[in-house]
Amino acid sequence: MHSSLEETLLGSIRTIPDYPKPGVQFRDITTLLGNARAFRRAVDELVHPYAGTKVEQVAGIEARGFILGGAVAHQLSAGFVPIRKKGKLPHHTVRIAYSLEYGIDEMEMHEDAVKPGQTVILVDDLLATGGTAEAAIKLLRQMGAEVVAACFVIDLPDLGGRAKLEGMDVTVRTLVSYEGD
Amino acid sequence: MHSSLEETLLGSIRTIPDYPKPGVQFRDITTLLGNARAFRRAVDELVHPYAGTKVEQVAGIEARGFILGGAVAHQLSAGFVPIRKKGKLPHHTVRIAYSLEYGIDEMEMHEDAVKPGQTVILVDDLLATGGTAEAAIKLLRQMGAEVVAACFVIDLPDLGGRAKLEGMDVTVRTLVSYEGD
Repeated sequence: MHSSLEETLLGSIRTIPDYPKPGVQFRDITTLLGNARAFRRAVDELVHPYAGTKVEQVAGIEARGFILGGAVAHQLSAGFVPIRKKGKLPHHTVRIAYSLEYGIDEMEMHEDAVKPGQTVILVDDLLATGGTAEAAIKLLRQMGAEVVAACFVIDLPDLGGRAKLEGMDVTVRTLVSYEGD
Repeated sequence: MHSSLEETLLGSIRTIPDYPKPGVQFRDITTLLGNARAFRRAVDELVHPYAGTKVEQVAGIEARGFILGGAVAHQLSAGFVPIRKKGKLPHHTVRIAYSLEYGIDEMEMHEDAVKPGQTVILVDDLLATGGTAEAAIKLLRQMGAEVVAACFVIDLPDLGGRAKLEGMDVTVRTLVSYEGD
């Protein structure tokens, strides 16, 4: 049986069948974001374990991770670190390649976005294979950050992301789960 | 003389000379975002006039507007409406073309992202010519939203954005200003 939080969140996420291609059920978080109560509860629940702890930076992955990560950073009185697609950041960056379903892509972070030893949590909307989050964590660690957790609203557990990130010694937090995706 | 808020914000914004092209001074807000105190103060100051008022949705423009807009929406217990580059949103959208320095681009919003009569404020990082914000406001109004204000951290007043948006009967709020840009 679902808790009230899970009911609120699951009830506000829209599923779009066969998007972006036949057979895929796309979990559309924009309806959760647009539902004031669901958005508030999701952010509060992501923040909850870190209230009163020393999280110095919240890193968010472009673009949906910016929405949640910005709110989480503000609520924790932390800074925000944007991790962007290549070519979008104006100053000196560090870059990493990561695998997509077809081919590879690259993401970047400003090289001075974190200071060595800073405590960082990573925020994104959805955990699937974990490849994007893995690359982001590697970038943050390359610049000396202590990445303690990776937090997502949605988990697609069949795709193995949690195991991948836990294998990097990162605590994984997710709020709702869609098995069979 | 600058107030303490302006000093904090101006002191945390990085200027990158000759980016993206010679003669342009790029105002890099990522250093403000990464400065926990400056980020907190910027968001709190954007939120301040609307605390206790009925703002139902906060619209943010991809991508930097997502970071600030997400935090503002959460703080106001409002929903968040992403306005994205074309082809990024998974459901039925409304689309509008707008002018860039060279050529045109298009932005989209889900057609059910706002309900008719909802009170909305628009958030982005920087107000220049106002062309992007103007297009976003038109999209929101097309779907029946009452857009009451457009809020930015940085104003480049020489580029005329404020007059353009005020001409649309929108209250314009900005936190710091760079004249001569």
